[in-house]
Amino acid sequence: MFINDDFLLDIPQARTLFHEYAEGQPIIDYHSHLDPAAIVDNRQFSNIAQLWLDGDHYKWRAMRTNGIPERLCSGDALDREKYDAWAATVPRLLRNPLYHWTHLELRRPFGISGILFSPETADEVWKKTSSMLQSGGMGALDILKRMNVETVCTTDDPCDDLSAHRRHASSGDSVKLLPTFRPDKARAVHQGSAWREWVARLEQASRMEIRDLAAFREALASRHDFFARHGCKLSDHSLEAFDEESLSGEEAAALFASALRGGDIASGDAVRFSNYLMDYFAELDSAKNWVRQLHVGALRNPNGAALRDLGPDTGFDAIADFTYMAPLGRLLDRSAQQGTLPRTILYNLNPRDNAALAVLCGSFQDGVTAGKMQYGAAWWFLDQMDGMTRHLETLSQLGMLSRFVGMLTDSRSLLSYTRHEYFRRILCRVLGRDMAQGLVPDDMEMVGSMAADISYRNAKQYFNF
Amino acid sequence: MFINDDFLLDIPQARTLFHEYAEGQPIIDYHSHLDPAAIVDNRQFSNIAQLWLDGDHYKWRAMRTNGIPERLCSGDALDREKYDAWAATVPRLLRNPLYHWTHLELRRPFGISGILFSPETADEVWKKTSSMLQSGGMGALDILKRMNVETVCTTDDPCDDLSAHRRHASSGDSVKLLPTFRPDKARAVHQGSAWREWVARLEQASRMEIRDLAAFREALASRHDFFARHGCKLSDHSLEAFDEESLSGEEAAALFASALRGGDIASGDAVRFSNYLMDYFAELDSAKNWVRQLHVGALRNPNGAALRDLGPDTGFDAIADFTYMAPLGRLLDRSAQQGTLPRTILYNLNPRDNAALAVLCGSFQDGVTAGKMQYGAAWWFLDQMDGMTRHLETLSQLGMLSRFVGMLTDSRSLLSYTRHEYFRRILCRVLGRDMAQGLVPDDMEMVGSMAADISYRNAKQYFNF
Amino acid sequence: MFINDDFLLDIPQARTLFHEYAEGQPIIDYHSHLDPAAIVDNRQFSNIAQLWLDGDHYKWRAMRTNGIPERLCSGDALDREKYDAWAATVPRLLRNPLYHWTHLELRRPFGISGILFSPETADEVWKKTSSMLQSGGMGALDILKRMNVETVCTTDDPCDDLSAHRRHASSGDSVKLLPTFRPDKARAVHQGSAWREWVARLEQASRMEIRDLAAFREALASRHDFFARHGCKLSDHSLEAFDEESLSGEEAAALFASALRGGDIASGDAVRFSNYLMDYFAELDSAKNWVRQLHVGALRNPNGAALRDLGPDTGFDAIADFTYMAPLGRLLDRSAQQGTLPRTILYNLNPRDNAALAVLCGSFQDGVTAGKMQYGAAWWFLDQMDGMTRHLETLSQLGMLSRFVGMLTDSRSLLSYTRHEYFRRILCRVLGRDMAQGLVPDDMEMVGSMAADISYRNAKQYFNF
Repeated sequence: MFINDDFLLDIPQARTLFHEYAEGQPIIDYHSHLDPAAIVDNRQFSNIAQLWLDGDHYKWRAMRTNGIPERLCSGDALDREKYDAWAATVPRLLRNPLYHWTHLELRRPFGISGILFSPETADEVWKKTSSMLQSGGMGALDILKRMNVETVCTTDDPCDDLSAHRRHASSGDSVKLLPTFRPDKARAVHQGSAWREWVARLEQASRMEIRDLAAFREALASRHDFFARHGCKLSDHSLEAFDEESLSGEEAAALFASALRGGDIASGDAVRFSNYLMDYFAELDSAKNWVRQLHVGALRNPNGAALRDLGPDTGFDAIADFTYMAPLGRLLDRSAQQGTLPRTILYNLNPRDNAALAVLCGSFQDGVTAGKMQYGAAWWFLDQMDGMTRHLETLSQLGMLSRFVGMLTDSRSLLSYTRHEYFRRILCRVLGRDMAQGLVPDDMEMVGSMAADISYRNAKQYFNF
Repeated sequence: MFINDDFLLDIPQARTLFHEYAEGQPIIDYHSHLDPAAIVDNRQFSNIAQLWLDGDHYKWRAMRTNGIPERLCSGDALDREKYDAWAATVPRLLRNPLYHWTHLELRRPFGISGILFSPETADEVWKKTSSMLQSGGMGALDILKRMNVETVCTTDDPCDDLSAHRRHASSGDSVKLLPTFRPDKARAVHQGSAWREWVARLEQASRMEIRDLAAFREALASRHDFFARHGCKLSDHSLEAFDEESLSGEEAAALFASALRGGDIASGDAVRFSNYLMDYFAELDSAKNWVRQLHVGALRNPNGAALRDLGPDTGFDAIADFTYMAPLGRLLDRSAQQGTLPRTILYNLNPRDNAALAVLCGSFQDGVTAGKMQYGAAWWFLDQMDGMTRHLETLSQLGMLSRFVGMLTDSRSLLSYTRHEYFRRILCRVLGRDMAQGLVPDDMEMVGSMAADISYRNAKQYFNF
Repeated sequence: MFINDDFLLDIPQARTLFHEYAEGQPIIDYHSHLDPAAIVDNRQFSNIAQLWLDGDHYKWRAMRTNGIPERLCSGDALDREKYDAWAATVPRLLRNPLYHWTHLELRRPFGISGILFSPETADEVWKKTSSMLQSGGMGALDILKRMNVETVCTTDDPCDDLSAHRRHASSGDSVKLLPTFRPDKARAVHQGSAWREWVARLEQASRMEIRDLAAFREALASRHDFFARHGCKLSDHSLEAFDEESLSGEEAAALFASALRGGDIASGDAVRFSNYLMDYFAELDSAKNWVRQLHVGALRNPNGAALRDLGPDTGFDAIADFTYMAPLGRLLDRSAQQGTLPRTILYNLNPRDNAALAVLCGSFQDGVTAGKMQYGAAWWFLDQMDGMTRHLETLSQLGMLSRFVGMLTDSRSLLSYTRHEYFRRILCRVLGRDMAQGLVPDDMEMVGSMAADISYRNAKQYFNF
């Protein structure tokens, strides 16, 4: 029964919901970190280590916890060496999502089931998967099609030329590959020279001279337009500090001028300038009816020794515990007051904030767009069975589950598409149990329709792809 | 099985507990926001929309989330238009407490069961309920009697003349209708002119001139006495900021004088003055052996645009995430040190604080009054199945469930009395599962007695009605 | 079925896991507050009240909640009077861990089962237990042996002469009795004269004159060496404030000199000095490859009236809600940057921090020592069924359950060893349910091996006793 057709579906109603309503729906992956060039080039892989371990900081983290040296995680060991280190780690991961993911990924797209991955089975799996990968039909784009992916949104810097997205669009391929506007670097005025370098990149990308805030705004708007012309319908923002008010245009202009000259920016001023830009991005998104995503609450790089040695995004980030409901409410309200609050998805990283964030979403529903404010799917560390179950419970009790736009991968790995399957199984498990216990009507058409909506149809409608 | 006699009771022990020990107990609703005049006048309703949708910000919130325009929520649409908008929203609310509440309310007091409320069944329900409401015997007071309500406590301003309560008392009706002393406006010194207007109202109500803090205290005490003479046994206070110390009598007198003259009050000073008054109210409550209720952690009006257009209490509040255990401990301790800590019920709105607040209660139990400090029932946004279950679990593991004074409605709606039924079913579900699994002894007399205590007898004894 | 052989094990797989893999493992209690002298002296007890109620602030707390006067809790009443007050309280504690603990403790080591403890059965239990206690073979050390305890670590002040531990070691007894280095008083510079008195004690214990920081460090190091010579392998630290940076050696020396002269130390400075010493203790622990324990988040003595009357550690502490992930990350990072981060167990008291703390642990795993950073077992108020279950879930989803070093008692009571049994039953319950539902492979050898590891073998290896 482990990782078979009915994995997680131990209630008859859950099985029917999944197999008849959810399983067959296409995938809309509205938030990922895939490399668009890999997709348009249908990049080939010679072994599963490349798919599993290159850049996958979830797995590196687990391997380090298991005492695996860095050379075999993010280091320069051979693919097979890393793979064997991973195989030695997997049996140690019982009850961790990586244990489920690993077996789900072997099952789809590789069709390998009925084995437990471990050093004993590693060689057999290596041979089978290598053979499949090397025999064609398993490139990056092929994998998306095998996984029934209809739309993928990547995450892109405003300065990106979107050449991969443009090539893909002109190829006429059936999979939609769309960019997402992620201007976090525009707000990072506290980073001094790194910020100024980014402004210089923006000058080049926009072909505009940026000497003042007005020009900066104009350049950002021109990139926003450029992204829109190439199919972009979402923006994305990471919020790690916004516990201040915003700035007036004049204050922001003065601060911008000072920052451009290399002046020191006080920490509170940097946050206020960031808030000012958030208000501006809300205007841009609202005018184009884009969906804005706000990711709140990462604690970046607490391990400075690891940051120094390995750089960012290598599996050393954590969950912050700052308080933010009041300032987040003000951020939303500043836009609401101006009539420029875009449709917004709010994600929290600390599960202790589930209830408060779900409720804050509800305080900005406008009675015009159904499900306008979305309490976003369980994110990053919370993207696991307990995290998803609690997210669904919170959204159900405090919001409107039926309007939920559902799952995303947020992943750098092509194999992560089984996470949509995992989510749908968990959703159907929850709904099936409710039906069996009389918590919702035992009406398969009604509940099944909701499962299909959340699996696919709500996202289709909400994002207007 | 959906919303029938055994709703939520899928374990035999749970059914026995509910039907034999909990279901038949009278209701003591020690905290509500019902209009006392409606009760004493046995106000009549011509249709269910008036009962369901007038002033019910829970439903408005859900309707806005479903894209229903404001005119059909809090606006001036016809009753039937609003009702139809609600009927269109309900099927969207699967897994939300409103879905259960709606069907529980149709079942009691209207006797409508076996249907799912939706646009398809809306007209039939409208006709049946209108006919019942218009044929008499379904006024406000009638509904209380049908729901087996023994005592209702309303929530009242200290300046209120309690005329409705007095009329009701003199009518000799069997339902007890008692006031609750809620002096939040006395503490709102930061509101400037609104606060001074309230002081002027207090002068009138108390027939005392208020020129200094001593007179203010005296006037408040006189209203406290007045409420006591009319059956009041509870006070209620909303705490949204108390992260400061209190003031000495001299400091408070100076601040009061300044505020009365219209002087600017710094934010920290306003909080300290509020703390000072909280200490004073503790003295008053303690002297009369009242029960004090503290509601901690609302985030009021984050949506300023909605506040501007629709006013407060229209469904736009949220959950705050400030930290408060240490200052709340000091607030309790200041009274404990003086021997003036009243019996107190503490409610939190952010469920992440469940454990800490339940434990803080335990740190002020005095070994004299059993269950003196109560960790209060799941409040507002938490008044739903998951919220109640978690509250019961926290109270069980960290406190003494058997001494719990149980459920309240906190509602503006007469139909909300099914929430007591909902709570009792959930309580019996939890206890029944424990019995079935051997987590508590399978001793029906013992566990059933506890269920009856929590449903009714503990409140009866604790509040001394 | 209540508290029998299969208590908590309502799934066949759970029963097999417990009875065949977990139950028979010896106990390593790596964190307790037992009195080492009582153990080496095999202290005798004449009745169960002495074992149950002397110093047990968990029970006192519950009794106060039940309205039992202080004389019968921590006061001077007769043993039998206290015992009867406890018997009157127990039936009120359904769903509280004390209810389970009480019956588990009667079952082991007293062999009393099949009764519910209450005033009706109290006399019978008193007689049976008194007879057993007075007939020999039930001294403190005897009880440890009956409970299959292999190793006990006590918690000791650096100034302690460890005479009890030394006597025990020289007795050649099979139970290991080891000290733990707990230098909290060294950091309590804000306590002024109490801190200076402790420095004077340290002078005596170390036979060194302490006139400056260098000497203070040397004296602490000499006690650290002394503890190591007597088998110590762990340190322990309570962290209630560390939201500041550390100090340079020069700054710390100046502050130390001022504090020693009796100068006023500002609150922030005291915290920074405490951080400085934490960094130093990390160096000491790291050099000896000790395991460091950090207990984060107690709110001590919120009830000042009780503190005044009864002193600390009498059952009036609570759970703090301060935010601390960023400063805790910096504390760990300062040591990581120096290569002096010891193996560390991190415990949180507020369950809302479960996820963030478990993840922060993962951010400091080093790829050298498997399971180096441990997310510690549910602590104090969380040491109950819900708390343990949630801890296991968090650790599973966000860390590596299989590397967990498992349970400890943290107790002042010899009877608390059933808490290891309680933990193992809960662990096997969780794992057995997962097997039954296909969440982990239904492979008894694989899952059972993990249960045995967590019950005993991981601790054996990690602590290197």
